[in-house]
Amino acid sequence: MKKTTPTMKDVAKEAGVALGTVSKVINGIPVGETYKVKVEAAIKKLNYQVNTYARGLKTSKTETITLIIPSLNLPFFASFAYEVEQQAYAHGRKLILCCSNGIPEKELDYLLLASQSKTDGIIALTYSDISNQVPNNIPLIAFDRKFDNYQIPRIASDNYEGGILAIQKLLEFGCKSPVFIGFHSSFPGEADKRFDGYIEACKKNQLKPVYLYATDSEDCHDSIYNFIKEHENKDTHTLDFDGIFANTDLHACIAIHVLKELGYSVPDDVQVIGFDGTKKFYPGEEYMVSTIRQPLPELAKKCIDMILDEDNYPIPTLTLLPVTYEYGGTTIG
Amino acid sequence: MKKTTPTMKDVAKEAGVALGTVSKVINGIPVGETYKVKVEAAIKKLNYQVNTYARGLKTSKTETITLIIPSLNLPFFASFAYEVEQQAYAHGRKLILCCSNGIPEKELDYLLLASQSKTDGIIALTYSDISNQVPNNIPLIAFDRKFDNYQIPRIASDNYEGGILAIQKLLEFGCKSPVFIGFHSSFPGEADKRFDGYIEACKKNQLKPVYLYATDSEDCHDSIYNFIKEHENKDTHTLDFDGIFANTDLHACIAIHVLKELGYSVPDDVQVIGFDGTKKFYPGEEYMVSTIRQPLPELAKKCIDMILDEDNYPIPTLTLLPVTYEYGGTTIG
Repeated sequence: MKKTTPTMKDVAKEAGVALGTVSKVINGIPVGETYKVKVEAAIKKLNYQVNTYARGLKTSKTETITLIIPSLNLPFFASFAYEVEQQAYAHGRKLILCCSNGIPEKELDYLLLASQSKTDGIIALTYSDISNQVPNNIPLIAFDRKFDNYQIPRIASDNYEGGILAIQKLLEFGCKSPVFIGFHSSFPGEADKRFDGYIEACKKNQLKPVYLYATDSEDCHDSIYNFIKEHENKDTHTLDFDGIFANTDLHACIAIHVLKELGYSVPDDVQVIGFDGTKKFYPGEEYMVSTIRQPLPELAKKCIDMILDEDNYPIPTLTLLPVTYEYGGTTIG
Repeated sequence: MKKTTPTMKDVAKEAGVALGTVSKVINGIPVGETYKVKVEAAIKKLNYQVNTYARGLKTSKTETITLIIPSLNLPFFASFAYEVEQQAYAHGRKLILCCSNGIPEKELDYLLLASQSKTDGIIALTYSDISNQVPNNIPLIAFDRKFDNYQIPRIASDNYEGGILAIQKLLEFGCKSPVFIGFHSSFPGEADKRFDGYIEACKKNQLKPVYLYATDSEDCHDSIYNFIKEHENKDTHTLDFDGIFANTDLHACIAIHVLKELGYSVPDDVQVIGFDGTKKFYPGEEYMVSTIRQPLPELAKKCIDMILDEDNYPIPTLTLLPVTYEYGGTTIG
């Protein structure tokens, strides 16, 4: 059945202005007088009703979007928070930032903001067991993390394809025996599919899967050290693998650190590919390691769009964006 | 004259609970029933009036503090934002985060939130020319930056003492000729005093000041490269300085990069001390370079306290917190 109620997009089209401008006028945020007149004329002509949000939300009153992330101390989290702020602002929304440190009570405290209509929507990257306590009817997007509550839409990178891409690249660069090294949260999330992608890539290429895949409660350095020692021939000072796909750039850095401790060279003895797309502190445009890059600006935009886009009905339960391989000095290409 | 009006602190003392608990009860944020009863009894007993903020603010209704910073892409900014969020939450406040990218219009947009009573206070780390557009009567703390408007309280590290400390350490470590390398914003701020501290330390120790101090519109790498080449004896492949105090950790990293390009070793040929206290990505507890550390958790706490503490009258116009020297591998000690 064709939808006939006019939307904010229709208003923008009619007025010949950007969607963000319409949003600003509706929310009483100052725009140039010419724009304001155009938007108001379009609203009148189309008989646009502000409170027609597809997800049944109340008219935006708070002008805020809330982001829940564990911290800002990892570059990945800091960059994601930055991109979400930029996208929220482009849509006339301020960002409420919660660094939860994984404390469930704090996460719930911020989720409450939405149920009390104190924020227009929440983007949550949580690593705690709050699945069963989240109501269905709040405007919540789960980033990366999987909630038991299946009504909550999830947005993530295509981690599975990323896992396959990493192995494909290592094989292209001449590796014969790539291994997987990773640590996962005890709560299920989309990032777990990096490992699934590795297993699939092994199957496809008739390789025997060899991996370290422990929970993040383990000591990463010691676990990686023990794993590498198990795969070392002490007499010849050689390893029985020649490539590592690590499930984050941080774990790739730790693996490289351990390899150097043990006297192996990267990328000559072992090529390493991480995951995330973390940039170096300086020079700023270089990747810290060769990596599968998550498209953070696009992921942030998708999260904001999904909260604000009234035309997006039904809301997809899962949206994955494509990843890319980026060179960062720890592979030969 | 002794103040007799009861304060939130008095209520906390009377009720035997933390200040944050009183704040939560006043702002309608859920706390344990026992605490709530205690706080309410204390409010009644003391006849505490919620709207007695020393700075004449309206009763806190928004439960938010706003932070304006340029971005989250430098670890220093990300860490400061994290600490401000932690401190705000501890006081029952949510954080509104603005990454301004130095765009004056965006900064003003967020400053407006306070004048419209949509946020309880603003902490601003701005690098643009908005001094004259900021009203006197909004709850604003300038972090690091100096506004022309002298009524706005400033909080910063003791940058001047930090400059003196850096040179003192380099001399302690055997340097004879430490130079200063830095780039400054065209807008005045407390960070400019790092250079003043360097000059003072030279005077104290009867050293001739030698420095590169350009505006941040210059290309840092090229400027540092040219500066070092000017101080190089090509025949002997030696430099006429043996220590660098760089005014940020980022500039220290660039200087180290250039020194390596030119075949000099750090810390053997040249010892380098930066400023900020930036940690490495991995291992997480190590400093990226030897550095003068800014006490970020304490600075964040001071900013939040100054916005919320009703007893703090008159508000100090400038508050400086002490810095410390931290070893990061680019000095001998």
